[in-house]
Amino acid sequence: MRVLGVDPGLTRCGFGVIDGAPGRALSLVATGVAGTSTDDEIGLRLLALEEHVERWLTDYRPDAVAVERVFSQHNVRTVMGTAQAGAVAMLCSARRRLPVALHTPSEVKAAVTGNGRAGKAQVTEMVTRLLSLDDPPKPADSADALALAICHLWRWGAQRSLAEAVARQARPAAPFIRAPGGARTHLAAGGRS
Amino acid sequence: MRVLGVDPGLTRCGFGVIDGAPGRALSLVATGVAGTSTDDEIGLRLLALEEHVERWLTDYRPDAVAVERVFSQHNVRTVMGTAQAGAVAMLCSARRRLPVALHTPSEVKAAVTGNGRAGKAQVTEMVTRLLSLDDPPKPADSADALALAICHLWRWGAQRSLAEAVARQARPAAPFIRAPGGARTHLAAGGRS
Repeated sequence: MRVLGVDPGLTRCGFGVIDGAPGRALSLVATGVAGTSTDDEIGLRLLALEEHVERWLTDYRPDAVAVERVFSQHNVRTVMGTAQAGAVAMLCSARRRLPVALHTPSEVKAAVTGNGRAGKAQVTEMVTRLLSLDDPPKPADSADALALAICHLWRWGAQRSLAEAVARQARPAAPFIRAPGGARTHLAAGGRS
Repeated sequence: MRVLGVDPGLTRCGFGVIDGAPGRALSLVATGVAGTSTDDEIGLRLLALEEHVERWLTDYRPDAVAVERVFSQHNVRTVMGTAQAGAVAMLCSARRRLPVALHTPSEVKAAVTGNGRAGKAQVTEMVTRLLSLDDPPKPADSADALALAICHLWRWGAQRSLAEAVARQARPAAPFIRAPGGARTHLAAGGRS
């Protein structure tokens, strides 16, 4: 499964694409940051951002998109820009019928570092390790988008495992038949969290 | 000049189109409210809203679009929905290279009623009078979108008058020549506010 994480912002919008599956190693596909000019009108900035999002979706064809869920912050202006940029990312994804998930910053931090209040350096360090990179991803602020993608992949894996466990329990007990060859395998209930 | 006012919202988004010019009577072209289902994913709601906005732009071909500027409100969730819906309206307008203006609720109230803290009933009453309607516009919550369009038209007129006045002052004094016929007319410095 390929996930595009979007850390929304009008001035700087982070993108991170990873490949992986629950319980398997993750790999970095691409990462970057796109900006729009504060000198431009808001409509033109949203239009420029739409082009960036479209390019990421076209170039990397993700199976799912994860966007940071905006919460109350101190600076109302920043929150608005984040909400507007996030709307563009969700709109472009929905147009391609891609599943879109929202995760809060603390969900992302908790998934990646085990601590919902982890600092930026800690998140970057874990992202670097989890993606087996020699150096921290660049630009520095693209680590958040990658962390978002990792969080999404694991949460999705955990949800799938849970759904499978429920389905197994609901299934009527089958007569015990051992298949030739002996051992039964089943899908690993993968992922952390 | 034709203005489309958009009172953004994911659950209910108001639209109002008016025709007019500074210093002249205003007329109602169309008004309505579009909604998206709270049962749908956010991406699909934004997509549905985009279709509504596109239809209003295509059907009425406004010269300018006015969108309510979101400010800090108590309910963070509502603010986010408003910011996201506003982003869709601005994006669609920018795609058509239409000028987009943002006005705060108190700017709109002040322009239409003379009081930045006017109540809903007062705004509706003034919109009804200014557009020479027999009855208040329906649905009731479309009055805000019409008020926004009226506010925009007047502010735009006031700005134009100011720019003209500045240009007149900057012009070097011409030798006094009275044209045959006598009286000079100049463009009325139109609009209120």
